[in-house]
Order: sequence, then C-alpha cells, then structure tokens
Amino acid sequence: MSREQDLAPEAQPDPSRRRFLNTAAVAGLAGASMSVGLSACNQGNKAATVAAPAAAAVEEGHSPHLKPGELDTYYGFWSGGHTGDFRVLGLPSGRELHRVPCFVPDALVGWGITNESKAVMGTKPDGSLKYTVGDTHHTHASYKDGNYDGRYAWINDKINSRIARIRLDYFVCDKITELPNVQGFHGIFPDKRDPVDPAINYTTRVFCGAEFHIPLPNDGRDMDTPEKYRTLFSCVDAESMEVRWQVLIDGNCDLVATSYDGKLAATNQYNTEGGFHYEGMMSAERDACLFFNIARIEAAVKAGKFTTYGNSKVPVVDGTRAANADPKTALTAYVSVPKNPHGVNASPDGKYFICAGKLSPTGTVIELAKVLDWFDGTLPELDKAIVAEVELGLGPLHTAFDGRGNAYTTLFLDSQIVKWNVEAAIKFHAGDKTANYVVDRLDVTYQPGHINASQSETMFADGKWLAVGCKFSKDRFLPVGPLHAETEQLVDISGEKMKLVADHPVRPEPHDFIIFKRELLRPKQIYDMAEFPLAVKDQKEAGVFRDGKKVTVKIASLAPAFDPREFKVKLGDEVTIILTNLDKVEDLTHGFAIPKYNVNFIVNPQETKSVTFKADKLGVYWCYCTHFCHALHLEMRARMIVEA
Amino acid sequence: MSREQDLAPEAQPDPSRRRFLNTAAVAGLAGASMSVGLSACNQGNKAATVAAPAAAAVEEGHSPHLKPGELDTYYGFWSGGHTGDFRVLGLPSGRELHRVPCFVPDALVGWGITNESKAVMGTKPDGSLKYTVGDTHHTHASYKDGNYDGRYAWINDKINSRIARIRLDYFVCDKITELPNVQGFHGIFPDKRDPVDPAINYTTRVFCGAEFHIPLPNDGRDMDTPEKYRTLFSCVDAESMEVRWQVLIDGNCDLVATSYDGKLAATNQYNTEGGFHYEGMMSAERDACLFFNIARIEAAVKAGKFTTYGNSKVPVVDGTRAANADPKTALTAYVSVPKNPHGVNASPDGKYFICAGKLSPTGTVIELAKVLDWFDGTLPELDKAIVAEVELGLGPLHTAFDGRGNAYTTLFLDSQIVKWNVEAAIKFHAGDKTANYVVDRLDVTYQPGHINASQSETMFADGKWLAVGCKFSKDRFLPVGPLHAETEQLVDISGEKMKLVADHPVRPEPHDFIIFKRELLRPKQIYDMAEFPLAVKDQKEAGVFRDGKKVTVKIASLAPAFDPREFKVKLGDEVTIILTNLDKVEDLTHGFAIPKYNVNFIVNPQETKSVTFKADKLGVYWCYCTHFCHALHLEMRARMIVEA
Repeated sequence: MSREQDLAPEAQPDPSRRRFLNTAAVAGLAGASMSVGLSACNQGNKAATVAAPAAAAVEEGHSPHLKPGELDTYYGFWSGGHTGDFRVLGLPSGRELHRVPCFVPDALVGWGITNESKAVMGTKPDGSLKYTVGDTHHTHASYKDGNYDGRYAWINDKINSRIARIRLDYFVCDKITELPNVQGFHGIFPDKRDPVDPAINYTTRVFCGAEFHIPLPNDGRDMDTPEKYRTLFSCVDAESMEVRWQVLIDGNCDLVATSYDGKLAATNQYNTEGGFHYEGMMSAERDACLFFNIARIEAAVKAGKFTTYGNSKVPVVDGTRAANADPKTALTAYVSVPKNPHGVNASPDGKYFICAGKLSPTGTVIELAKVLDWFDGTLPELDKAIVAEVELGLGPLHTAFDGRGNAYTTLFLDSQIVKWNVEAAIKFHAGDKTANYVVDRLDVTYQPGHINASQSETMFADGKWLAVGCKFSKDRFLPVGPLHAETEQLVDISGEKMKLVADHPVRPEPHDFIIFKRELLRPKQIYDMAEFPLAVKDQKEAGVFRDGKKVTVKIASLAPAFDPREFKVKLGDEVTIILTNLDKVEDLTHGFAIPKYNVNFIVNPQETKSVTFKADKLGVYWCYCTHFCHALHLEMRARMIVEA
Repeated sequence: MSREQDLAPEAQPDPSRRRFLNTAAVAGLAGASMSVGLSACNQGNKAATVAAPAAAAVEEGHSPHLKPGELDTYYGFWSGGHTGDFRVLGLPSGRELHRVPCFVPDALVGWGITNESKAVMGTKPDGSLKYTVGDTHHTHASYKDGNYDGRYAWINDKINSRIARIRLDYFVCDKITELPNVQGFHGIFPDKRDPVDPAINYTTRVFCGAEFHIPLPNDGRDMDTPEKYRTLFSCVDAESMEVRWQVLIDGNCDLVATSYDGKLAATNQYNTEGGFHYEGMMSAERDACLFFNIARIEAAVKAGKFTTYGNSKVPVVDGTRAANADPKTALTAYVSVPKNPHGVNASPDGKYFICAGKLSPTGTVIELAKVLDWFDGTLPELDKAIVAEVELGLGPLHTAFDGRGNAYTTLFLDSQIVKWNVEAAIKFHAGDKTANYVVDRLDVTYQPGHINASQSETMFADGKWLAVGCKFSKDRFLPVGPLHAETEQLVDISGEKMKLVADHPVRPEPHDFIIFKRELLRPKQIYDMAEFPLAVKDQKEAGVFRDGKKVTVKIASLAPAFDPREFKVKLGDEVTIILTNLDKVEDLTHGFAIPKYNVNFIVNPQETKSVTFKADKLGVYWCYCTHFCHALHLEMRARMIVEA
C-alpha cells in the first residue's frame, strides 16, 4: 500500500477527484494498517452501497444566484472552527454577511481591546486576555414551539471548553462561560422545551458534551492511570449562562441532540473503551448513543444526590453505565451503536435520533418513544429502541432532513451524500428486503463533514436547500498556497434527485451550521443608548476628567468630527477613553484608532465603548476614524497630546 | 438643513437609495456647514455632469457566476482595512479564497502565537506582541516589464505605520517594517523599474506616504505648535525591507502612484494648509499632487545631503516646497490640484497621472513627460503639466482604466461611477467644447471609494471587469445588526455601457485592491522542508529533549497520529514545541491545540512551526489536531502530562 509521501505533489489544480480520493483519505487510513470496520460492509443493503459513479455533479437546479440588490431568502449560521468566530451567511447566495467575534480577539470590532469585550472574554489578573485562541464547532439557536425564535445562538470553543452566547438582535456575543471539570467541549445543543412544565415551550437549557477524558479533578492526580479518566456532560442555563449541573459518564462525547418534547438529550459516544491512543479508541465494534433523562437528573440534583470536583461548585451526578443499570432509576441510557459514531441528529417529525457510524458504514435509527419506554420499565431491552441500522456507505458522519421523510447523510470516505428514506430503512431493518431505502447519491468534493438543510433542525424542515461542509477543496478554486479554503457546497434538494448548484469557499474551518428562513429574525440596526451606562449622550458631556493619575476622556463622534478634537494627558496617566457614536443613521459606523497605542475599535450608531491604557509615550498622536463614514472621513481626527 | 439625528432610524431594508443619499453623506456634509467646493460645479462640461438618473442598474452582461468546480479567471488582492488582513479573491465570482494574516494575530494559522510569526510581527521585551491591531488600506504587487511578476505583494498598516510583504509563492507574510518618523502611513506603491539602470526592469523600491503631520522627532517637543508639524514620504527596499530614505514634505499624503519608466513617484496631498481641524484642512481651494524625482533624491542621499531624526538612522532629504523652488535642482515638484484630492492613478499607457478632487468635482490629468520637462528646466510653469481638469461629479475619489483610453472614477457623494475618455477630456480642456468626454454613468450602492479594473494598474489593462468598493451597503443584504458588510460591486466594462452584475459583501473594510489574470501567479501548494531550519524531518527525530528547565518537544504529524503520542514535562518548565507536518499530500493540513495553554496553530504539508510557553498548570492536557485531516481526525491527539 502506498503512503502519502510516495505521491508527487501538484501545484496546479488536478480535476481527477477519484485519484485524490484514492490517495489522501483512504490511503492514509489504510496506510495506518487499520480495518476501520470495513468488514461491516458484508451485511445489509449491499446493492445500494456499491460505489457506482454518481451522475454528473453539475446539473440544472434552482439557481443560487441573486441579481444585484436581491436579498437572500435564508440565513445560515456557521461556526468558524479554529478561526474562532461565528459566521452569518446569506443563502442561497452563500455570501458571508457577518462574523461575530466571541472567543478570539477581532481587530475590526475592537473585540479583546475594549473594556466591555474584555469583561465578556475574561482576563488574567494583569488585565490581559486569558485566551486568544478558540475552536468553534457547533452553533445552534434558541427554540420556541419547535422553531427558532430569534433570541439567541450558542457556540462552543473546544480548545478551552467555553460556551458563548450571541444575541440575535444586535448580533453580538454577550456572555461566555468556561465549563469546569472538562476538556475538549465539543457537541452542543439547546433544549426545545421543558421536560416537565408544558408552559415552557422554549429553550431554557443548553447541553454540552465533552470529548476528552481526564483525571477528576485534573490537578496532577491519576495522570498515569487513564482508566480513571472520565468526561462529563454539562447543562448550562440559557439565560444566566451558569452551569446548572454535570453528569459523569463513560466514553468520549461527540455530537449532541435534543428531543422536541424536552425529555431527552443524547450524545454520540466514541472511545467507550477508554483508550488513549487511536487504536485503543477503536478496538470495540460498538460504542453508544448516550441518552439523558433530564427530569430525573434535575430531580437527583434537587435531592442532593451529587458530588463536586475541586474548586467547582457545580453539582455532578453519576451517569456512568455501571451506576445506571436499573431503568426505573437510571439517569442515563447507553443505546449501542456501531464503532466510533460521530453525528446524532433529531428527525423533524420528533420521532427519531439518527446516529452516523463513522468507522462503520451504517446509520442507526433510534426511536425516542422506545427509549422513554425503557426508562419507564416497559421496554426490557434498551437496544430494541434501535428500529433500523442500515448500510449507507463509507464514513457516515452527519445527517440532515427534508421534512418529506428523507435523510441526507455525509459519507466522508466516499465523498458522497446519500439520500435515504427513514421509513423504508425501518422496513428493511424489520426484514422487508424489497424496501429500497437509498433514494439517491451525489458526489461532493471532497471529504464532507457536517451537512444541514433549510430548517432541518426544526419541526419545519422545508426540503429546499442543503449545504455540505467539505473538508478538502484541493482543485475547486484558484491556488492560493499550501493552505486551502474549505468548500461549502450547495445542493438543491427540492426534487427527487439532488442537484449540486454552487461551491462556496470558506476560511477554515466551519464545522456545523444551521439554515433557516429569514422571517425568523428581526435584527436591530441602531443601538438603544440605554444599553450603555457609560454613554456620552451629548457633545456637551464630552471632555477630560481627571482623578489623580486616572483620566477619563469622554468623546462623542458625529460625522465628520470627534468632540473634543484634542485632549491632553500626562505621561504615566491611566487613561480611559469612553466613546459614544451620536450618529443615528443606519450603517454610519465610526472607528477610533490611536497610533502606537495599540488601540482600535468601532462604534455603531448609538453605541458606546471604552478602552483603558497607560500613557507611556510622549508626543502627539492623531486618533483617527478607521471606519469610512463621510466625505470628510480622512479629516475626522482627534489629537491626543501626551505631556511630560 | 436637517441633521442625521432628525431622521427616523429604520431597522428593515429600505430600497430607496436616493433617500439614503439625500440623508446620510450629503446631509452630514451640509449639516456641518461646509461648501465642499460645490461652487466649482459652475464651470466645465455642465451638461455631462447633470445627475440624470442612470439606466436601470441591473442589466444583462457577462455572467459572474461559475458552475461548481469552474475556476475564476482573475485573482483579486484586497486590503482588509481595520480587520488588518490581506485578502485573496477569485473573480468574477467574488469568492474569498484566502486571508493572509500580517499585522494582526490570526487564531486559525497561529499567527501571533508561533515563535516564527512573533518574530515577523515584532514583540515587546516581555515577549508579548507589540501590536495586535492594524488598518490595511492599499495593496500592490511587484512588477516586471510593466506587469505583475508574481513575487511579492505589499500592504500598509495605517495605525502603526508598518509595511508588510507577502510572498506570493506560499501566500504568507515574511517581513514587516515599522517606518520611523511618521504617523498615519497610508498610500503605498512599488516602483516599476529603476530610474537610471535600464537592466532593472522590475520592482526594487516601495514608496510609502504618511498622512498625519507630527513634531519631528515626536518626543514631546513642538506639541502645541502645529505649524512645525510635518510628514515624510518613505522609500523601502523591496528585498531587504529596510527603509532606504525619507523626504520631508508639506501637506498630508493620500494615495501614491509611480510611473512606468521608474523616474517619478507621486502622492496626492491634502492639508497643504497644515491645519489641524477639518475646517483648517480644507480652507485652501487647491492642494497638490507632489512628484518625487527618484534619481535626484538618491543622488542627494549619496552626496550626504540629508538629516536624521531622533534615534532613526534613515537619511531624510528636504522636499518641502520652499527648499525646491529651482527646477534644475528640485527633488520634488508640487503640481497644484483642487481641494483635498484623494486618489492618484497612473494610466496604463504610461503617459498620465490622474488625480481625483474629492472636495472638488473634478479630475485632473497630469502629463508625466511635462513634469520631467519641468525638472529638466524646459517647462517654465509646473502647472502647465496639467493637460486636463474636467468636471466629473460630486466627490471623485479613485480612477481605474480599461486600456481603451477610458477612465472610471468613483463619485462618493453621487454614489456613481463615471466613465470618461481621457483624450476627449484633454481636448475639452484645450478648448474644444464639443469634446464629450463623459461616456457613461452607473449608479452604485452606496458611497463608492476605491475602484479598480482587471489589469488596470499595469500596462496591460484589459477592460473586462471592474470592481468598486462601496462603503455603505445599507439595504443590499439581509440585516445582521448594526454593523453592516460593505459591498464590492462587480461591473462588466467590456462594452460601451457599464453593466452591474453582482454585489459581493465583505467584512469591513476593504479599501484598495488589484485584479489580474490568473496566469501571472504560480503558487506552491506543498512547502519545501529546506525552508525550515527547525524541521523534524523524520518521526525518528521526534521526542523530548531537556536542557535544565528548558524542554524542547519535537513532534511529527502524519495522519492520523502525532509522534510522540504523549510527553511529560515538569511544572515550571519553559517548553518549546516544534512540529513538522510530514504529510505531503496537497491540502492535508494539521492543527495543534493545547487546551488551557492558549496554543493553537496549523502546519501545512511539509511545514514546521514552533511555540514556547511555560508549563504553569499541573495535569493532563490532550493536544489535538484542529484541522480536519482524516477519518480518524478526532482521535488524532497527543497527551501532554505536566508533573510536579
């Protein structure tokens, strides 16, 4: 078997996708001498999984192209991966409309520069930022009655186990919480209603799965005894953003899903073996989709049946397999699924969770009513909740839905999307071998990970557009050096056959995303000054205010001038600049940069921000507007004079 | 006159562009009680400048839409404004293919995190970054024989007066230089050949204009005597990136242009008045396009006719108006142009520089041969080099060319592009009032700044595509809160009439850009390991190497594993991790994150990077691959164990 280094690198685009498939991902896998569960290919709907070349990828479909000035019909929320951001796309055009900084500084906005953003991001005792890197994977928005309600979105940071909340009125991050006791926080999903109170038909909790198993607490103990390492599943309050509770569990959490009735959350578990090298993490043939009985967990916390770890005050209940053998009292249920499963997705009819096998070529359909039966003691064998387990192709990762009973699963190794009918798969699994559950296959380019469709994560999946995040772009765009864009491919799924209609390059690396109708959001485009207690409400309030060595400079911006237009401070002063944008015209944003003082931030209409720095350099510094605002934008400056 | 605050803000898109035009920019200007040179409207080609509504903006043209997998035909290099980056777009699709971090940290790449990037960016004595903000405005690429040669691009940082160079083989920033003695470094342009040596038919210098006038040196002297403030024009060596020389000048530099024969550079000057409030900066009716005689300046430097300021060793020659009255010895020539001019652009035939009036509705055409005549003493009156000064419309800012004799100038206040014929304008200026120089007008949305066309900044302008950077997008995209995207509008200029074909939103705020044929670049997609002296060339070289409290961990990545897969360090160690990506497959990038240690970076195929940090937290830390690489990507981890 040849390895990667035997292949001649190519600087120019190479249209041969099969050659790439046969060398990069598959060869890499095989080269590492692993079976990756290919033996499982011998069972199931064999005819359908034979990798016949798909129809030519480029076909006629709904046009994703808008005329100049024409608005998109859907919003897309995309995670930005290790770029660390939250992105807003318009669909079907695929245009990136906004990036909301949360975990990582942003020089445009002044995120990580202003006092307000530093308070959200978190600082060290010396006032510098605690973290400047992030790795966002999954973003989901708040629900009401099974659809998005336009209040919030949440996004994870895997590197430092943080969760950020984005306000969807102003599209800004307003809270970040660092989860205790965990490492590698990965999957995230809000609940959709309360498991007990029917009046709470909206999101009040966000569930967070942690991937890496570590000693508890991770303070230097048990480092060489990996069999004691554990992960936790966390519940964060949607409003306060405090961690309500955690559950000690077996295995490593991948994705998270929640039921539409609010009763169940689940996470796909790989490495139920507790291995600490990849071979050990994939030694077992089956891992688990781990279900959480939310009402029971909260009752246990209320009853004081919890522990805590280290300095954390967060209650932790025991959700390990060994402690939850009795269904009548169990907090958790480990439904078995094949080998290192990856994605878990809730079908829009509310009935099923679908798990993708990753190292098994299968999709597993779990009926939620049966999981509840098991918790109620009426289903003797938990794995009877599995109503289908069917072959889909190599490397299944994530699944989307069209609201017409079909699922769309990405096949990482096959570089394909497989469209399959869920009820037909259930029939096939029940023994009806005439049930041809595979409806269509579409080659994508290349190595697809996440997939989602318009309204797919709601009860109102509308089956219009599907996007697929391809991890490799290789030859799809002009070459730009060794670092390639990734590809979000857009597929028209309104008909029986899938139709690839556009390639959208993205800066690495988006993982998950959601797509929903534009009517569901009503963003505000002018700030309410009442949101800012420090606001300089009028030019008359502007000026320099000294308190010993602390100087506050209150500035108002109104195109084309800052007020005051010059100010003096003394060497060694601690200077706080408070700037309010008095302009009220939509889109009339000002910036404020101070040369050599490492200061820049913007203020949108009616917004206020502040920065604090030490005046440690003598001289004249022309503070200037960095955000084009007016014909006299270049002339819009204020002079800071630092005197001895 | 109503001011902005009298207008009701609108949260939802409003298609009425005229209403916006009449309230935001124009009202803001008039509200500040300024005449902005509108009186100049009374002269010139009046019929042509009457603002008749342009034809419907959306018309048929060349399609900017590509089929999936189809490659763009042009590269675009865009500055990222106060996002601080250098962007690479594909055109005509408008797709963003890459962002090259230079002045500002980038969490994806690890720019500002790795030792190698910190060395390029510059650090404080404590090892932290000197600057984390930037404001890029203009980017231009290296030339040979009047066309791009694919070696380098340069980009400015206005906030901290830095110039960065981007290698166009790997699309990475390899050098940053901070200019001494200046503030507000704004315009930038490489030379196109040597003024003396005909064998040097390629770029060897980069010219940099500084905008803000400051005391010299800016060490606390002369702070309250603005009449002593001055700016400098700088020349940076294209290869060494050292500052060769500077010129002391009058006025504030806006844009920079260079001649195709290498003999002249120029910068448009506003605030030749030396004002320090905007009223003072616009009190004079004419400012200047300031020409530099490169050969004479370098001879003066060689002859020791220079001074230096403060700690800087850079030679500074005197280019002020007063010191350069004699054309025979002058280093500089101040050609007068109307009121606060903004852009200056070289026509592709090599004959003219065209200055845009900003606060005057005019374009000024300066014939370069005549400027050289003045320097030679054969043109008695310098302003006779002005061969046309014609009305174009309100707020002219920048000009592009189609190679067929036409210029395209943005009109900021009119929100229009005006297409005009340069030779007809010269005839009109010479007295032929039948010469209708205005060919076409196109409404754009809204408030256009920079403009450029395919190959426009070379001798090979091809007149196919034109892009225009619109500062306000207002109603052109789905609303995403108070911060709006800007719009890069794409125009088909292959015919007589301009045709708007697409709106491309961009994160604020691109300023200048260049567009050129894809054949001019040959990027490499795999690194040459010889570029990295620290490379871990083989897994056998991996391991932990201790020198007292300093520990070097050499790691090799080869999908799906890091080697070593665990390593131990002691609390308090200074740890340096050196990571080489041994994979050779194109697009097979790995990432390396260490939870809680604020480390993340990527290594492209055959690349090596290093990070240094203090092991200040006990416990187990799962270093993981952050860049999707393989079916076992999630399992690709290394365990860092920090022992007491």
